[in-house]
Amino acid sequence: MKICIIGAGSPYTPELLEKLSEWRDRLPVRELVLMDTDADRLAIMTGFCQRYANALGTDIVIRGTTDRVDAIRDASFINTQIRVGGNRARIQDEKIPLSLGLIGQETTGAGGFAKALRTLPVMVDIARDVRKHAPDAWIVNYTNPTGLVAEAVIRHTGAKIAGLCAGGVFAQHWVGRSMGVAPQSVRYDLAGLNHMNFAYNLTASGRPLTNQEFSAAAREVGPVDPALIETLGALPSPYLQYYLHTTAKVAAMKAAGRTRGEEVLAMEPELFSAFADPAADRKPDLLKKRGGGGYADVAIGFMDAVWNARDSWMVVNVPNGRTLPFLPEDAVIETACLVGADGIRPLPVKDPPMAVRGLIAAVKSYEQLAVEAAMTGCRRTALAALMAHPLVRDGDVARTLLEQLLEANRNWLPLFFGEDAEP
Amino acid sequence: MKICIIGAGSPYTPELLEKLSEWRDRLPVRELVLMDTDADRLAIMTGFCQRYANALGTDIVIRGTTDRVDAIRDASFINTQIRVGGNRARIQDEKIPLSLGLIGQETTGAGGFAKALRTLPVMVDIARDVRKHAPDAWIVNYTNPTGLVAEAVIRHTGAKIAGLCAGGVFAQHWVGRSMGVAPQSVRYDLAGLNHMNFAYNLTASGRPLTNQEFSAAAREVGPVDPALIETLGALPSPYLQYYLHTTAKVAAMKAAGRTRGEEVLAMEPELFSAFADPAADRKPDLLKKRGGGGYADVAIGFMDAVWNARDSWMVVNVPNGRTLPFLPEDAVIETACLVGADGIRPLPVKDPPMAVRGLIAAVKSYEQLAVEAAMTGCRRTALAALMAHPLVRDGDVARTLLEQLLEANRNWLPLFFGEDAEP
Amino acid sequence: MKICIIGAGSPYTPELLEKLSEWRDRLPVRELVLMDTDADRLAIMTGFCQRYANALGTDIVIRGTTDRVDAIRDASFINTQIRVGGNRARIQDEKIPLSLGLIGQETTGAGGFAKALRTLPVMVDIARDVRKHAPDAWIVNYTNPTGLVAEAVIRHTGAKIAGLCAGGVFAQHWVGRSMGVAPQSVRYDLAGLNHMNFAYNLTASGRPLTNQEFSAAAREVGPVDPALIETLGALPSPYLQYYLHTTAKVAAMKAAGRTRGEEVLAMEPELFSAFADPAADRKPDLLKKRGGGGYADVAIGFMDAVWNARDSWMVVNVPNGRTLPFLPEDAVIETACLVGADGIRPLPVKDPPMAVRGLIAAVKSYEQLAVEAAMTGCRRTALAALMAHPLVRDGDVARTLLEQLLEANRNWLPLFFGEDAEP
Amino acid sequence: MKICIIGAGSPYTPELLEKLSEWRDRLPVRELVLMDTDADRLAIMTGFCQRYANALGTDIVIRGTTDRVDAIRDASFINTQIRVGGNRARIQDEKIPLSLGLIGQETTGAGGFAKALRTLPVMVDIARDVRKHAPDAWIVNYTNPTGLVAEAVIRHTGAKIAGLCAGGVFAQHWVGRSMGVAPQSVRYDLAGLNHMNFAYNLTASGRPLTNQEFSAAAREVGPVDPALIETLGALPSPYLQYYLHTTAKVAAMKAAGRTRGEEVLAMEPELFSAFADPAADRKPDLLKKRGGGGYADVAIGFMDAVWNARDSWMVVNVPNGRTLPFLPEDAVIETACLVGADGIRPLPVKDPPMAVRGLIAAVKSYEQLAVEAAMTGCRRTALAALMAHPLVRDGDVARTLLEQLLEANRNWLPLFFGEDAEP
Repeated sequence: MKICIIGAGSPYTPELLEKLSEWRDRLPVRELVLMDTDADRLAIMTGFCQRYANALGTDIVIRGTTDRVDAIRDASFINTQIRVGGNRARIQDEKIPLSLGLIGQETTGAGGFAKALRTLPVMVDIARDVRKHAPDAWIVNYTNPTGLVAEAVIRHTGAKIAGLCAGGVFAQHWVGRSMGVAPQSVRYDLAGLNHMNFAYNLTASGRPLTNQEFSAAAREVGPVDPALIETLGALPSPYLQYYLHTTAKVAAMKAAGRTRGEEVLAMEPELFSAFADPAADRKPDLLKKRGGGGYADVAIGFMDAVWNARDSWMVVNVPNGRTLPFLPEDAVIETACLVGADGIRPLPVKDPPMAVRGLIAAVKSYEQLAVEAAMTGCRRTALAALMAHPLVRDGDVARTLLEQLLEANRNWLPLFFGEDAEP
Repeated sequence: MKICIIGAGSPYTPELLEKLSEWRDRLPVRELVLMDTDADRLAIMTGFCQRYANALGTDIVIRGTTDRVDAIRDASFINTQIRVGGNRARIQDEKIPLSLGLIGQETTGAGGFAKALRTLPVMVDIARDVRKHAPDAWIVNYTNPTGLVAEAVIRHTGAKIAGLCAGGVFAQHWVGRSMGVAPQSVRYDLAGLNHMNFAYNLTASGRPLTNQEFSAAAREVGPVDPALIETLGALPSPYLQYYLHTTAKVAAMKAAGRTRGEEVLAMEPELFSAFADPAADRKPDLLKKRGGGGYADVAIGFMDAVWNARDSWMVVNVPNGRTLPFLPEDAVIETACLVGADGIRPLPVKDPPMAVRGLIAAVKSYEQLAVEAAMTGCRRTALAALMAHPLVRDGDVARTLLEQLLEANRNWLPLFFGEDAEP
Repeated sequence: MKICIIGAGSPYTPELLEKLSEWRDRLPVRELVLMDTDADRLAIMTGFCQRYANALGTDIVIRGTTDRVDAIRDASFINTQIRVGGNRARIQDEKIPLSLGLIGQETTGAGGFAKALRTLPVMVDIARDVRKHAPDAWIVNYTNPTGLVAEAVIRHTGAKIAGLCAGGVFAQHWVGRSMGVAPQSVRYDLAGLNHMNFAYNLTASGRPLTNQEFSAAAREVGPVDPALIETLGALPSPYLQYYLHTTAKVAAMKAAGRTRGEEVLAMEPELFSAFADPAADRKPDLLKKRGGGGYADVAIGFMDAVWNARDSWMVVNVPNGRTLPFLPEDAVIETACLVGADGIRPLPVKDPPMAVRGLIAAVKSYEQLAVEAAMTGCRRTALAALMAHPLVRDGDVARTLLEQLLEANRNWLPLFFGEDAEP
Repeated sequence: MKICIIGAGSPYTPELLEKLSEWRDRLPVRELVLMDTDADRLAIMTGFCQRYANALGTDIVIRGTTDRVDAIRDASFINTQIRVGGNRARIQDEKIPLSLGLIGQETTGAGGFAKALRTLPVMVDIARDVRKHAPDAWIVNYTNPTGLVAEAVIRHTGAKIAGLCAGGVFAQHWVGRSMGVAPQSVRYDLAGLNHMNFAYNLTASGRPLTNQEFSAAAREVGPVDPALIETLGALPSPYLQYYLHTTAKVAAMKAAGRTRGEEVLAMEPELFSAFADPAADRKPDLLKKRGGGGYADVAIGFMDAVWNARDSWMVVNVPNGRTLPFLPEDAVIETACLVGADGIRPLPVKDPPMAVRGLIAAVKSYEQLAVEAAMTGCRRTALAALMAHPLVRDGDVARTLLEQLLEANRNWLPLFFGEDAEP
């Protein structure tokens, strides 16, 4: 079995290698190809991973390439973790909305919109290569915004893609922790979108949670007021903090000295010089401080379920079908699925609480418009997307925001600024 | 045929009388009963209407009563135009949200929420009387918020109700004016909710409008930027100004010396003394300045269509059924219908543009929660309603707003403040 | 306004002319072009119609042509009433199934299947000419099987077509007769397919029928046992006799000396020599004996509703949309519609009684397979169609029947017997 | 864990015991209670099972009771395998339809209708006992007609019930055999109803079957002509022989000396005297000849999946939800499900081939009417059910059949013949 990682210059790469090593009895990987457009970071990461593989005692052959097709050809799973524009672009995504009094988070907020414009056409190109050079392969994606990436890839290429996110199982852990039970014994209906999902109809070992148990779990969510969670009647993704506490978050982000992107960027030199150290064959401690990991577990779980026909319960971003009747059938949603040899099937859920249905529908409208805007370069559709976004909405504000975002991202948006761009 | 008006102390009453007189050949009304809880205003309006009927040369017998059942019994049509709490309550609805930086409009904004809490239980009580004392009658409602009133009445009583609004035909007039054609020749799909509706798929005499014709019509809408209307791809209700220009509207409302409710209240003494003048047998000029009329045409059109089996195309607030697949089947929507002897049937429409679908869904979630809150007195549901409202949304803000609105309306909210109120 | 009739050699043609003359104030027809592939019958009918028009005092210009495009070009309405293979083919349709113990009726039974194979490709060709030479025109179709014709034309050409049948208003007359009220005051939900429809939820002047009134109406249907109608809970098309009394009908058809097709064929020489009589300027009496008319009223009603924007309640064969949730959205159904300047909109109905839902679904499956078979010439799909037909069903019987029908119709089925035919 | 078997006098009982013994490591059963209304057969079976348990070396405590509540109280799983009226009633079910030229099979044909009338009220009574005395327990049902039993129980009691049938995995074995692969590697969409299901969209180890592989699997189905299976495009339940070869099957059944029920009845004395032999502690050889087993595997598989939270792919009769859009949401269908600690979730499927959709819909209409008739004793609904059944359909025939079936089953139909019976 051959596996590749597109965007392998990311510091997340070693984590996947580590998990592949742990699971070698179940996943017979013979070759792991690392691909990145940044040759320098790729060289550092390839060298480190070869040393790390050695230290882990695995015999997976590891090599680096800047040739995407070379990486993809005949692979069984294509892991994608790209960041178009790097952390410098991310910082703009964060700062421009904030300057207008808006949430600039890189997935949920208006920042996620700019990221989508940059990222989707590239991911669709990658998927076209997969269709051509590894037609039976699965794309295992954790490039954000993962729901929009999955929707663009499915609509425009028909490639097989699993849009993953570590957050789908958070509710298992919240309930597990508050009740003192194993996370795996916790099940629920999960409805919504990536970073806009809600867990409800919760059970532990098949028994529905009491109101008290639900309240206790709500207190584990963290950045969302537990009383508001009880009002919703569902455990939300932590990203809901940006919706439920918008005013407070904007104030806090303005008060903070620097953005999350700036923090991450500041860490990179030290992190990469640690990876580059020829003596280094273990993950640097600094990696933990960076945070954001956890994808490797989900990615490995997915590959195991498909390769070994395991019938695993997993949260994936998939086309809705008839799961949520208030969303289009072709809309990608994030929901619990059965994953096995024949792919991904979303499991039926009860309709989510009315208190969250409208929000999900509104954000999905934004997402579908954003996908269309990203793939056409149409400014009118882009403006409609921002007006459909609950965190922007006001048409006057949206227009100013759009102008600034497009201008700042001019270099990464050939569809908007190329010769054939729509007016 | 007997007709009654509940809330007949309103200055709108003479307009309906005038139309009944005009249409006497088609609608054989023998008795018009005026009912109000305010005996003084009722007496003034009854006296004026009797003189006005005389002047119009109609032989409809007009009488006043404060006994609701007396008014309803055996009537064919029950016109309802009540205002619980009067204009003084309305002014609070406008001012409290504004003090928190929010839209306080009496139907669309957070103010409409407070109005719904006061109004819905009373309208449901009226509908129960109709079921009992005039079971085959239609309630012809123009009490706002008319969509929420219709939904509460249908869900809780099963009474026959037509939730009317003069705005459903606005798009006929915008297109008629910009193209120089008869409004009646203009047709469209109308999708959405009361004061949250959109006309699209427009035709004039069966021919689809060109983009240029659409743009010209967009310029007629008035308070919404035509460029934003083109972005939406649908002609919006003028009330969309509160969504598409929120920041500007809040600023303007703060800058204005007084609210719309205060203006109306200030006019009332002069207006009622004009009605009370024993010599007055014509509508006072001041009535035009007050504005807000136009309902009588719609109400008469509805009564004519039902009574005379006319198969009329009308915009009505009705249960969705399968008209809009992204809303629940029992949700009341505002849409074009066929009205005839056997009632109201919503006409199928193309799915509305994606740019407005999320907004409609979000507001409908708010509406369904608001109806439930109003009819149960449950504070948790009330908070969920405000969090679901796109113009409020932030949970911290919603909580403060709810406390202030409930406190200010304490006298009109027995379900929230009575002995059996939910905690 | 120009109107044409394709298949104008039919004896139904004068009826339409008569109605056009009656309605001349509402439908300003200037030219009526008669088209047929049978030059002899066309000449006779053109001559008669010119004399008849004269006698009626209308100034519509009438002319005949065998050039289809000439007839279609710039017409406002294209009336289609063709019979591919003529009555000789019909007689085979009747006799072959009967010889296997099956219903051979020309629309409902297996005979209708053979008629569909012959007719659909020709009607689709006509529709393509309409798209090209009169793109805004409506095809007003009463060629049988009208539901399958409409589905094939819509799916393959996108032309505007109204699939009409005189039977849609029968229930108005049954109820009108049994209650002694005007048929126009009777309304109902009409659900189903052409010749497989059911009227229920019946009202007269807006009042629901009592059980007694329903039973009385059931006795008017004629060829169906009223007790079985009460079991269904809906007034069926008279063609349901072939489903509800199959055994008795097959026996009766076998016992009868000759088929309906043979009767009609026998009448033709006398009928056409009457039309050909240069002195004849009135419809021959024999026409009444022939029967089968009534379409002209429906066709005129449709043209009036569209041309004059009348908002008429009419029964038409149209794409289902979400009218019947148990059928595909693109399936053509027969149902009550609002017809106006902007076309045809099916009216929402209550779900039909469970007792008829399965039958409607089964026949629709047959119909969709029959349309596909007719337009592809695929024998496998043709066999699947007959197996899906409730009046055939048994696979062994279906196979024998298919062989015999195809062989007998070899000359009219180029898709099945041409060089490129699917195996 | 306590398990009980209702209808334990059946010769299937030892098979379940055998499987419980095999799976003792995964299912910690402490007590197995056998319940039957026939005390004699119960005594024989209890005695045999105790000896058999001993021989198998299991320490499960086995006891018999004729007290249903005693059996049910606090059990974790209630296995139900009753036969109201015994084999004598079954023989009538087979013979009466056959005498009218109809299929009298005990599940699929008109015979299954009579069985449903006798069985459903009893099963609903049992389910009410379960709700009361073991509210968290699952009913594991293999009483036929299992789909109708599940629908009646769910609609009338809300008890948790798994309607099982050994046939759901047949397609795994057909494909496994024809391709030489493990049955477990075969997956498919399974759509339809019990004994009216179809497997399509087939894969082996995630790879779609080629046309040749499908044809080879079709030849394994057995009693259905493979050419007809290719026409359908789906592997049918073997019971489809009664629909696809009706004429041939009726002829063969008439030609046969005796019915299947008569064969089974003839075997019983010898079979039960073998069980009664105090020396017998192994299953008698004659049991194999009787056939009809295979349920125990499915039942154990279900109990394991629930008890041990296994996330198993299983075919179960469950409420449709939105799985098949052409059936009501509350209709019980037979489809592939994910079974785990929190119950049964039907997996989404592609829409089944058009060639089988109408048949499934027609039979489901029959089933829903049959359930209603069985639970109300309404003759009109019973007649509607038979008219909706594709194997009866003709109203005249249905009426005669109904009279004969009711009369023959008079003793087991208190709802039809009791004092309060509907006319």
